[in-house]
Amino acid sequence: MLRQVASTIAAIAPRQGLHEVTDPIAQWVCEQDIETGLLTIFCRHTSASLVIQENAASAARRDLETFMARIAPEDPSLYTHNDEGPDDMPAHIRSALTSTQLSVPVAQGRLALGTWQGIYLFEHRREPSRRELGLHLVGE
Amino acid sequence: MLRQVASTIAAIAPRQGLHEVTDPIAQWVCEQDIETGLLTIFCRHTSASLVIQENAASAARRDLETFMARIAPEDPSLYTHNDEGPDDMPAHIRSALTSTQLSVPVAQGRLALGTWQGIYLFEHRREPSRRELGLHLVGE
Amino acid sequence: MLRQVASTIAAIAPRQGLHEVTDPIAQWVCEQDIETGLLTIFCRHTSASLVIQENAASAARRDLETFMARIAPEDPSLYTHNDEGPDDMPAHIRSALTSTQLSVPVAQGRLALGTWQGIYLFEHRREPSRRELGLHLVGE
Repeated sequence: MLRQVASTIAAIAPRQGLHEVTDPIAQWVCEQDIETGLLTIFCRHTSASLVIQENAASAARRDLETFMARIAPEDPSLYTHNDEGPDDMPAHIRSALTSTQLSVPVAQGRLALGTWQGIYLFEHRREPSRRELGLHLVGE
Repeated sequence: MLRQVASTIAAIAPRQGLHEVTDPIAQWVCEQDIETGLLTIFCRHTSASLVIQENAASAARRDLETFMARIAPEDPSLYTHNDEGPDDMPAHIRSALTSTQLSVPVAQGRLALGTWQGIYLFEHRREPSRRELGLHLVGE
Repeated sequence: MLRQVASTIAAIAPRQGLHEVTDPIAQWVCEQDIETGLLTIFCRHTSASLVIQENAASAARRDLETFMARIAPEDPSLYTHNDEGPDDMPAHIRSALTSTQLSVPVAQGRLALGTWQGIYLFEHRREPSRRELGLHLVGE
């Protein structure tokens, strides 16, 4: 019979940019003893986001960070909203361009990610703070 | 025991840009008497989209609109598809860059959004029309 | 009573760009005999993604491809990660800007897409390969 489990986990990125959170999420899923189902991860912030990216080459992650810095630069002349500094508004834009929420199938009790996929918290602020991720798992 | 509820709600943005829809969605969730679960919102259009953004400073929302106008401008020389006017193709691009669908955990009978998060219908056309959002809630 | 079904389907795009996958997904949903529910599609790759786009005018899809080529060009001078050629890093960026996962409500036994919505596999590599999409359907 289908059941659900809900929780939250916290994460702090060591610096601005992509910070992998696959392991703590995968471990939580394993502990729920659900063979087949769907995991949803929800980022409760508007200046940090989620993205599934290549988990092998760190150069790929640096390039994605550079891309975001190019497309939504920390240049106060571009924005009217700078309450919390030059990284404030770019953080909101970079969040909107990536994901606030991701759902990942669970198969054989594990996250059914592709071989090269990792789940990343994308911290967009220069001074990373504690971020809360909501988790919801439905399955059996 | 897990159950689901499905519905649709309609929204019309007063103008092109971000239009908050948190309240009608939150109210619908409250009415379903589901304590813990997952709400999915689906935008049934390709020229309007969904985004979770900062709900306090309206300047942040204006800056996001300005960003989209910069990155995907209403400039017919950039596009071959202009059937419905200069805002036609930018609307499809801006939709692709944000979200057609969002899932949000429900905890204690309410949307488990972060403090500064609001759910927005992002209307990309200059003449807003009636937009339909599908809602699906699973939980117990 | 709620139940779930999970599966995977494979797709190969004929060329780089948007390749519609609505039909095989819609057919799979029909076969599951679920009247009301939620379908989740998950792309198990970081150089191909999912997007819901306008299904009528092919010019709209070409314009979206052109936009991505403009914003994340295949220009090795912009990236440090070029292991698999000039289309390697742009593929990861374009994936991050669109969706790895989409959830679509099911109503009356069918995908509740809007009239003009199609589901597309967005192949970002110049030599398309076999892509695997995870499917998860919950409903009754």
